[in-house]
Amino acid sequence: MKGKVYLVGAGPGDPELLTVKALRLLQTADVVLHDDLVQLEILHLIPPTALIQNVGKRCGTTTMRQEEINFLLVTLAASGREVVRLKSGDPLIFGRAGEELDALRRSNISYEIVPGVTSALGAAAAAGIPLTHRHASSTLVLTAGHRASEKIDPDWKNFAGADSTFVIYMPGHDYAAVAARLVTSGFASETPCAIISRATTPEQQIHQTTISQLPGSPTLAAPTLLVVGEVVKFADRPDKPAAFFSGMENGFEIVLGQSFSVPERPNQEDPLS
Amino acid sequence: MKGKVYLVGAGPGDPELLTVKALRLLQTADVVLHDDLVQLEILHLIPPTALIQNVGKRCGTTTMRQEEINFLLVTLAASGREVVRLKSGDPLIFGRAGEELDALRRSNISYEIVPGVTSALGAAAAAGIPLTHRHASSTLVLTAGHRASEKIDPDWKNFAGADSTFVIYMPGHDYAAVAARLVTSGFASETPCAIISRATTPEQQIHQTTISQLPGSPTLAAPTLLVVGEVVKFADRPDKPAAFFSGMENGFEIVLGQSFSVPERPNQEDPLS
Repeated sequence: MKGKVYLVGAGPGDPELLTVKALRLLQTADVVLHDDLVQLEILHLIPPTALIQNVGKRCGTTTMRQEEINFLLVTLAASGREVVRLKSGDPLIFGRAGEELDALRRSNISYEIVPGVTSALGAAAAAGIPLTHRHASSTLVLTAGHRASEKIDPDWKNFAGADSTFVIYMPGHDYAAVAARLVTSGFASETPCAIISRATTPEQQIHQTTISQLPGSPTLAAPTLLVVGEVVKFADRPDKPAAFFSGMENGFEIVLGQSFSVPERPNQEDPLS
Repeated sequence: MKGKVYLVGAGPGDPELLTVKALRLLQTADVVLHDDLVQLEILHLIPPTALIQNVGKRCGTTTMRQEEINFLLVTLAASGREVVRLKSGDPLIFGRAGEELDALRRSNISYEIVPGVTSALGAAAAAGIPLTHRHASSTLVLTAGHRASEKIDPDWKNFAGADSTFVIYMPGHDYAAVAARLVTSGFASETPCAIISRATTPEQQIHQTTISQLPGSPTLAAPTLLVVGEVVKFADRPDKPAAFFSGMENGFEIVLGQSFSVPERPNQEDPLS
């Protein structure tokens, strides 16, 4: 019997943010090779009959080299195993999937890619930040903080003042350096930004600030993500937690703006009929 | 009883690419207000007891104005309904979520955002394109083709030559105009690109080309997405469908590169022990 490799996104953290397909594959896989950042609660969804191995890189210390991971994927699939290669977020963003795909293709191993909710989307949902906005941002830019293992260090100058939302994955804890690089690259120092730590997990923390005040921000636990751009001003207000609707007494005019008039009150038993 | 609004991402098309949470909410919602692009197979997952309404905009013809959608969300939640506002892909990317969030906050309606797999990730998974790559792209840029309803028309000049992958949502069918705009903005005409139509659905189609040859490309059915960048050269080869592993006879050296030596063959019964 032929095996197969599934490159699967684990989503941003919350096990309920796995896709239905990812959950199905985790529950039927023979082997799961996962990254460090995959939450324990997600690994607990894997039946005890499967082999599970962390092949991640922790704090720069390589647990397993990329060539060794490629070797495992090919070896296991070639010997008939269904292998899930589980990466946090989406497998095709900052996940070195290109090298694994290359290895699988060169060895004629059957594979399938199962996309996932990338961390920026989980973080934005947690903070209530619309990543694009008709009046503030037409474009979303996802980049990674500098890592020695990457050959390309992006020039942030391209993204300053581009009417876009700029999201830095793994910005690190040297917020002063990040702020300086942003300003040097042309971002206005009063640009709103938010540090989002462990989004969609019980330890989630959100800190809203501006680039100029970023250096004084509290150090939030990794993994973090930094969202930079005018859209951050549309985030949930941390000082004003979402309240429940207070009743019908004020009517709905406040929601409707100037241009809308309600011909008649909708039938509340079946308002869509 | 208080109602609540869930802004939920439906993912790129395949119902199995719903998140577990999205599926749960669809199966318990009182009302589902969805966009045009949400697949019929996903709507079939909603129990017949729920009210379902398409509030999408089709081909520029507004089925329902944004103010009316806001009104419905607030009215229904205020009258105690659990409302799912279902948007294709992720709710915070090109989904006008900012305006709906604003309406919900101003009326003190309780809400929650459930992120989803945005279309670019579904398309990249379908085509086997690593969106970032250590040797080719450090940054992912998501933008939308020009739409009259948007106030901001992004300047693509910022993104040309930025060692990034450039993804255009809804590029339209005037490929000649898109190619001309890309070249005028500074993209090299030989840059590889791929049109991906109806990714992750049974009607999925993929056409790989270059910017200079884009105008002669076949017109693929909407919704489409255009991926532009060097990473497209790492895509699955359409002329060479994924083959199964041909056996162990050649060993695994081909996968391992020059720097790796195998001390001993792993035990294939339990290769991770």
